Amino acid sequence: MTPLPTPTGRLTVAGLGPGAPAHTTAAVLQALQQADDVVGYLPYVARAQALWTTHDMAAQGTEAQPQWHASDNRVEIARARQALALAAQGRRVVVVSSGDPGVFAMASALFEALEHADAAESTRWQALDIEVLPGVTAMLAAAARAGAPLGHDFACINLSDNLKPWDVIAQRVQLALQADFALALYNPRSASRPEGFARLLALLRAHCTPERLLVFARAVATPDEQLQVCTLQEARADMADMRTVVLVGNSQTRRVGPWVYTPRSYPGATPASAGSAP
Amino acid sequence: MTPLPTPTGRLTVAGLGPGAPAHTTAAVLQALQQADDVVGYLPYVARAQALWTTHDMAAQGTEAQPQWHASDNRVEIARARQALALAAQGRRVVVVSSGDPGVFAMASALFEALEHADAAESTRWQALDIEVLPGVTAMLAAAARAGAPLGHDFACINLSDNLKPWDVIAQRVQLALQADFALALYNPRSASRPEGFARLLALLRAHCTPERLLVFARAVATPDEQLQVCTLQEARADMADMRTVVLVGNSQTRRVGPWVYTPRSYPGATPASAGSAP
Repeated sequence: MTPLPTPTGRLTVAGLGPGAPAHTTAAVLQALQQADDVVGYLPYVARAQALWTTHDMAAQGTEAQPQWHASDNRVEIARARQALALAAQGRRVVVVSSGDPGVFAMASALFEALEHADAAESTRWQALDIEVLPGVTAMLAAAARAGAPLGHDFACINLSDNLKPWDVIAQRVQLALQADFALALYNPRSASRPEGFARLLALLRAHCTPERLLVFARAVATPDEQLQVCTLQEARADMADMRTVVLVGNSQTRRVGPWVYTPRSYPGATPASAGSAP
Repeated sequence: MTPLPTPTGRLTVAGLGPGAPAHTTAAVLQALQQADDVVGYLPYVARAQALWTTHDMAAQGTEAQPQWHASDNRVEIARARQALALAAQGRRVVVVSSGDPGVFAMASALFEALEHADAAESTRWQALDIEVLPGVTAMLAAAARAGAPLGHDFACINLSDNLKPWDVIAQRVQLALQADFALALYNPRSASRPEGFARLLALLRAHCTPERLLVFARAVATPDEQLQVCTLQEARADMADMRTVVLVGNSQTRRVGPWVYTPRSYPGATPASAGSAP
C-alpha cells in the first residue's frame, strides 16, 4: 500500500516459507540480499543466513552481508519495535518469519507495535516504507505433502492459549466442526502446555466419527520431516509437538493410495454442476 | 510421500503463486524447467510460458521447452486425466495452478480423477511419482498487501455454488462469524452467478456491525492490482469480481495508518501472557 510521505527507511516483513530454501520466493530472497539488517526469532535468522550462503548473495550483488539481529521466542513486540527503530534510522530492515508472516507470525506484531507507538515514534514509524512479502505457510506445505486435505473450505486455528482463552479455542473448534470445515491447527503443543494436544483430541472425538482423517505434519520440508496420516481413532496426543501442524479432514475427506484429499464438491451440489469447478 | 513401486512417470502439481513471477518458488521453477508437458487452465499455462522466458530456462538447462497443454475453465477432471495419462507414458508432467494447488485448485481434482480411474488406469496411475508443490495462495498475497488481516484465527471459504449448495455456504459463513473468525472468501462472483456478492454482503450485515472491516483485493501482484479497504457499511457487491479475493476482519480487526491488521491476542487472554506470542 502507499506509504505516508517522506519515507525514512524501508521495513520488509518477509516469509521464508517452510524449511527448504526451494520454497522461498524470489521476492523474499531479493529483500534479504538488499537488507542492511535482518531481525527475527533465532532459528529463522539462522535460515536467512543459510539462504545467503545457498544463494551466494554476497557474490551476486554489491550488497554487503546484513547485520543479523536474532532474538528469542515470545518477544515479538520488542522485536517489532527494534525493527521499526532501525528502519527509522534510514536502514533497509527485513523481519523474517517462517512460512507466511501474516499467519500467526510477525506481520500482526509489527502493526500492533506501530499502533501502540508513542507520539514521537508514531510520526517517524508511520512514514516508513513498509512492505509485507507473503510466503508458503506451514499448512499449505503440510497439505501438499499429504495430498489435498485442504481442497475444500477450511478453518485455520492457532491452538496456543498464550494470547486467547482456551474457551475461545474450544468454541471455535466446535463451530468449525459444526460447519464441516477441514481444520488446519497451528501450535498444537508447547512446553508451556504440558496437556498438549489431548484436550483438542477429546473435542474432536466428541464431534467426529472415529474414521475422521488426521494428518500430523512435523517439520515439513526439513531433514526432520515426519508425516503421519491416521484416523481420529488411531490419533494420540504425542503425535503432535511444537514443530507439528495438524490437519483434520472434513466429513468427506478420504484416502486414495497413499494420499489424503478433500473433494471439491460437497453433498447437495446439483448433478448439473458436479463436473465443473469454482 | 513414498510412491507405489515401479514409477512410470512423474506428475507434479505446482502452484505458481499470485501474479508476479517474484512470488513463484524455486521448487516450482525447477519443476517447470524439467517438464516434458505443462497442463493447465489457459491463463495459468500462459503464466508458466512467461516464467520460461523470464528465467530463460532453455538457456539455463539442457531441457527443451515443454509441450504446453492449455484447457478452458471447468474441465478440471478431464485436465487431471490428461495429465495422468501423459505421465503414465513416462513423461514428466507439471499441472499448473495459480496460487497454491491445494486451495480450490487442481490438486484435489487430480486425486479425484485418480480415485475414480478404471481398473486398468488405476494400476498405471497409482504407480506414478506424484508430487504437490505448494505456492503462495491468493488470500496470503491479499493479506500481505493490506497488512495482516489474517493474523488471528480465520476461515477460508469458496463462495462458488458450482460444487456445493448455497445453503451450505450460508451456514458456514454464519458459523464462522459466530466463532469470530476472520474470513478469506474466494470466487465471490462469477458470470454464472449474476447476483454476485450481494447475498454474502446481506449475510455479513445480518451478523456484523457496520464498522466491520473488509478488504477487496483484485488481481494481486499483477499490473491490474486493485486494493480497496472499507467498512461493511461502505461495501458494495460490485467491488468484487472473478479476480477478487475478499477478506473480512474479525471483531478485533482495525486500521493503523493505511494498514489493516487483526491483533494476535483476543479479549479474555490473561495479562500475564498478553505480551507473549504463540
